[in-house]
Amino acid sequence: MPLTTEQAQELADARTAAAETRRATVPALEEILFEAVPVLDHGFVRVVDYMGDDAAIVQAARVSYGRGTKRVSEDEGLIRYLMRHRHSTPFEMCEIKFHVKLPIFVARQWIRHRTANVNEYSARYSVLDREFYVPAPAQLAAQSSSNRQGRGDVLEGEEAARALRWLRDDATQAFDHYEAMLNEDETAAGYDPEGQGLARELARMNLPLSTYTQWYWKCDLHNLFHFLSLRADPHAQYEIRVFADVMLDMVRRWVPLACRAFEDYRLGAVEVSAPGLAVVKRMLAGEAVEQKGSGLSPREWRELMAVLGR
Amino acid sequence: MPLTTEQAQELADARTAAAETRRATVPALEEILFEAVPVLDHGFVRVVDYMGDDAAIVQAARVSYGRGTKRVSEDEGLIRYLMRHRHSTPFEMCEIKFHVKLPIFVARQWIRHRTANVNEYSARYSVLDREFYVPAPAQLAAQSSSNRQGRGDVLEGEEAARALRWLRDDATQAFDHYEAMLNEDETAAGYDPEGQGLARELARMNLPLSTYTQWYWKCDLHNLFHFLSLRADPHAQYEIRVFADVMLDMVRRWVPLACRAFEDYRLGAVEVSAPGLAVVKRMLAGEAVEQKGSGLSPREWRELMAVLGR
Amino acid sequence: MPLTTEQAQELADARTAAAETRRATVPALEEILFEAVPVLDHGFVRVVDYMGDDAAIVQAARVSYGRGTKRVSEDEGLIRYLMRHRHSTPFEMCEIKFHVKLPIFVARQWIRHRTANVNEYSARYSVLDREFYVPAPAQLAAQSSSNRQGRGDVLEGEEAARALRWLRDDATQAFDHYEAMLNEDETAAGYDPEGQGLARELARMNLPLSTYTQWYWKCDLHNLFHFLSLRADPHAQYEIRVFADVMLDMVRRWVPLACRAFEDYRLGAVEVSAPGLAVVKRMLAGEAVEQKGSGLSPREWRELMAVLGR
Amino acid sequence: MPLTTEQAQELADARTAAAETRRATVPALEEILFEAVPVLDHGFVRVVDYMGDDAAIVQAARVSYGRGTKRVSEDEGLIRYLMRHRHSTPFEMCEIKFHVKLPIFVARQWIRHRTANVNEYSARYSVLDREFYVPAPAQLAAQSSSNRQGRGDVLEGEEAARALRWLRDDATQAFDHYEAMLNEDETAAGYDPEGQGLARELARMNLPLSTYTQWYWKCDLHNLFHFLSLRADPHAQYEIRVFADVMLDMVRRWVPLACRAFEDYRLGAVEVSAPGLAVVKRMLAGEAVEQKGSGLSPREWRELMAVLGR
Repeated sequence: MPLTTEQAQELADARTAAAETRRATVPALEEILFEAVPVLDHGFVRVVDYMGDDAAIVQAARVSYGRGTKRVSEDEGLIRYLMRHRHSTPFEMCEIKFHVKLPIFVARQWIRHRTANVNEYSARYSVLDREFYVPAPAQLAAQSSSNRQGRGDVLEGEEAARALRWLRDDATQAFDHYEAMLNEDETAAGYDPEGQGLARELARMNLPLSTYTQWYWKCDLHNLFHFLSLRADPHAQYEIRVFADVMLDMVRRWVPLACRAFEDYRLGAVEVSAPGLAVVKRMLAGEAVEQKGSGLSPREWRELMAVLGR
Repeated sequence: MPLTTEQAQELADARTAAAETRRATVPALEEILFEAVPVLDHGFVRVVDYMGDDAAIVQAARVSYGRGTKRVSEDEGLIRYLMRHRHSTPFEMCEIKFHVKLPIFVARQWIRHRTANVNEYSARYSVLDREFYVPAPAQLAAQSSSNRQGRGDVLEGEEAARALRWLRDDATQAFDHYEAMLNEDETAAGYDPEGQGLARELARMNLPLSTYTQWYWKCDLHNLFHFLSLRADPHAQYEIRVFADVMLDMVRRWVPLACRAFEDYRLGAVEVSAPGLAVVKRMLAGEAVEQKGSGLSPREWRELMAVLGR
Repeated sequence: MPLTTEQAQELADARTAAAETRRATVPALEEILFEAVPVLDHGFVRVVDYMGDDAAIVQAARVSYGRGTKRVSEDEGLIRYLMRHRHSTPFEMCEIKFHVKLPIFVARQWIRHRTANVNEYSARYSVLDREFYVPAPAQLAAQSSSNRQGRGDVLEGEEAARALRWLRDDATQAFDHYEAMLNEDETAAGYDPEGQGLARELARMNLPLSTYTQWYWKCDLHNLFHFLSLRADPHAQYEIRVFADVMLDMVRRWVPLACRAFEDYRLGAVEVSAPGLAVVKRMLAGEAVEQKGSGLSPREWRELMAVLGR
Repeated sequence: MPLTTEQAQELADARTAAAETRRATVPALEEILFEAVPVLDHGFVRVVDYMGDDAAIVQAARVSYGRGTKRVSEDEGLIRYLMRHRHSTPFEMCEIKFHVKLPIFVARQWIRHRTANVNEYSARYSVLDREFYVPAPAQLAAQSSSNRQGRGDVLEGEEAARALRWLRDDATQAFDHYEAMLNEDETAAGYDPEGQGLARELARMNLPLSTYTQWYWKCDLHNLFHFLSLRADPHAQYEIRVFADVMLDMVRRWVPLACRAFEDYRLGAVEVSAPGLAVVKRMLAGEAVEQKGSGLSPREWRELMAVLGR
């Protein structure tokens, strides 16, 4: 369970409050506002705030005075045009703020996206909860033999059991020692009233990378799409992809027109290189092209054929 | 008048619509939402949207679950602490979007702030309105003799009259030729039904830097404070400072606690250098310090004495 | 001529100096270092400094200790892989600094690329040279009738002559008045020893957008490629494209392997949308697909057919 | 020892190569180029490349044609003026690239500085070395009782011994299991020829935050100064401050004039708030001011008195 009773109560309270606003408002997103959607064993994503909607993209693209959008079909046409032609600035006019709880090794991939605003829970200042990620058995994959950066088959039998045991036991022991070194909890077993307690900023380094952290993460829609194009991609590590998938669902509620354009023109699109395009043209002209003589390396050829479903 | 009747109507329409939201809402800012506050002779600033409030800064700093803020006095204490110690990330959790109409030479200074999102009216795509900035006589200043980057006394007499005349007449002529070169307005005097019309992206280059442009400009609170600290400063050019002053008023409505902290610790604060601090300490100890022997250059000495009001 | 004799001498002097360094050095780029390559009627681009080379991309991707690159063919394979899979961070490890002289309306498009470092000549602080852009007759294009953001046929006859005359005469007059308002040049015709001279920061606004400015512009290779992909593109305005073309040539000298990968996988590549890919697959399977029933809008269909050369 | 014999050899090789260049070159920095300066028990910092020098700051500020700087004293005056008045863009014209080996919990603080380019060693792709940070006994500090984010006295006796033992033993065990789960090293004790080996991207999460990682980190001088102002500060955690201190020494070699200005006007400077300045003025006028009636909170008062050395 990602939330304590107290936290769940705080969320419920926040959800009952309502105010009147003149701002662009999206009922479908309001519906799930503040709700913590569970991800992995202890993580979650929730939308804390948002600015703008599909119409705000159109409004900015037109630098218009009112909110008065034209007909929806025209708006959709414009949004698709902007997406297709990489006019990114109007998409930057929408902003969304998430509260995310995630394992530290996932946070380390995520933070590479530099265009967001981030406020992370500080383990220098506060004590971390005893929560760490242990993969579900179905996710306990072997190293891929073909892709140095990917996963192969699921581990089974004793090798799997041993890995799960170590991941759980090593983390448990690390947290036991973390808490004992801190010596802050007077009710704990080994509490020593004479002990000074190790500084929090030092004790934390005993914890594993599977430990959960949390942050507020705020991003504009253009850069969020970029994040999702990399992290909702099959090449992304499973443990970050599940977060991206949940966020993509939330974006669909928020800006349905922009999101559909994104899925058509980015997420589901393929980039065909200059030499690759030459190959496609020859094939369309009826020629039987082979890798040899295609101008593509064997690897490029395989990638292109995969894209074309051949 | 910065707005046409039609534009004013669009704004009025936008202001009447209201919806219910669970998001943080600031009544004092809602009150002026969408309103175009006039700046200079044809410019304006208006708030188009916002995200967050003072409590959202606290919420992010605490990475908290609910909106439930503690007592206001505690929130203010925390906000002031964050500002004083340059913990900037919680301030990034608030976002505001402006629609601004401004002379191009002002836009060129403004755009140097790279951390904002901008969507500008395109003169490649559209035709610019016939609007350009002419300073009020009280703003028609001579070059400063002491500061290569500043203004001196107000010009008077024929020199002033001539400058105003040229600024107005040259711009008027440039617009006349711009419109004639475009050859788009069939009702215009020199319209030539046989003419092809010069491309908009070329014709615009005849216009002066005093021409008005407009944009949507969106920024987080931390970076907005940085913008205001540079542009609401007496060293900033008057024509950008008047925009910053109006925006500062809007920020005061939006996040009053954060804004007061900003005014105390940034805008009204002074930075005293290491050698300057040594001088202050000696003076506080009763020593009569002079520039010679102070470790400061004559210029640094003058700047420090000015700060100390001596 | 973009350079005065004095400036040309300064450049020549800089080019004769040489020092020993342990840093990665690229002879082909050193050859043209500091040289001002003319662009448009008064502009130029010159490389002022650079950091890194093709091997530095490989070195960063491998986080290696020495400079010892493996065989060139392996390096090229890795660089192409990085480009194809959008692993952008190794390309950020190369940096280049340009000195550019360009018309202000071009500078306004250019500055939208926010990831560069820029230091522009200040017209608040200094007086601008009397230099403005007048298109060559072959570039004096009509507004495109099909593309609101593009050019059509070249203007001819009196319409062309009149436009050139206005562009030249209006700018000349604006500069005459600029200089007279400044009243700084004692040797000038209308110089008034009693006049105070209008502040530079005000007088400049009389100048047209065709006026030349200049700046130092520094960018990493990844972001430079992004800039070039947008500005060396046929949809970019001619007046910025000519700068991008010159810079692309310089990049070819600097990092030939990375630049070839960029041209194959970015500049010459096409992005095919999800519905577009479905169409290509059906066509490759021998089906005679038409717009109707393709799932593409007429516009999307036209764009796809253009890409496929049909 | 942070380097293997092979790595040390690679560095030595890189240091012997030399080429001729027309670029700005800094002999004092060339002297230590590529050298790995040890930090903490297994970490290091080394300069891999640099662009520009003190003169390059001046050159950009003047947007000049040649390298020809004026007299050094004039250059220094200009650099100090730029620093004092927060004209930051000329400092962005210098760039430096570091290779850093550092514990992951330090890397997590460091990466918050978003304006740098980073290429980190990938534990998805490669296997991490068995290296983790264990504090020297003199750094094993208790939690501060007055500052929730700081350290107090050094731990002693059994509490210290136990902490060191746990930090070392838990990490050792985590690495043992990491390597066994990977099952990649055929010469290792528990190697199982039948085992598939857990995916690297999963196995790594068993490792503690004290594990060393490494990256290439590239930054411009302005943003590096900002980094140093926060991380070479006494409030920064010791384990990142030692890196910042080493980098500050390197910057002193690289751009001595700019670095001195930075130390005078940033690092050693104090910011006095608007109400704080009012207090200083009253004190300088001979008044005996007390907290009560000063307009400052008790905490602000204490902080101001500390700054003034009273």
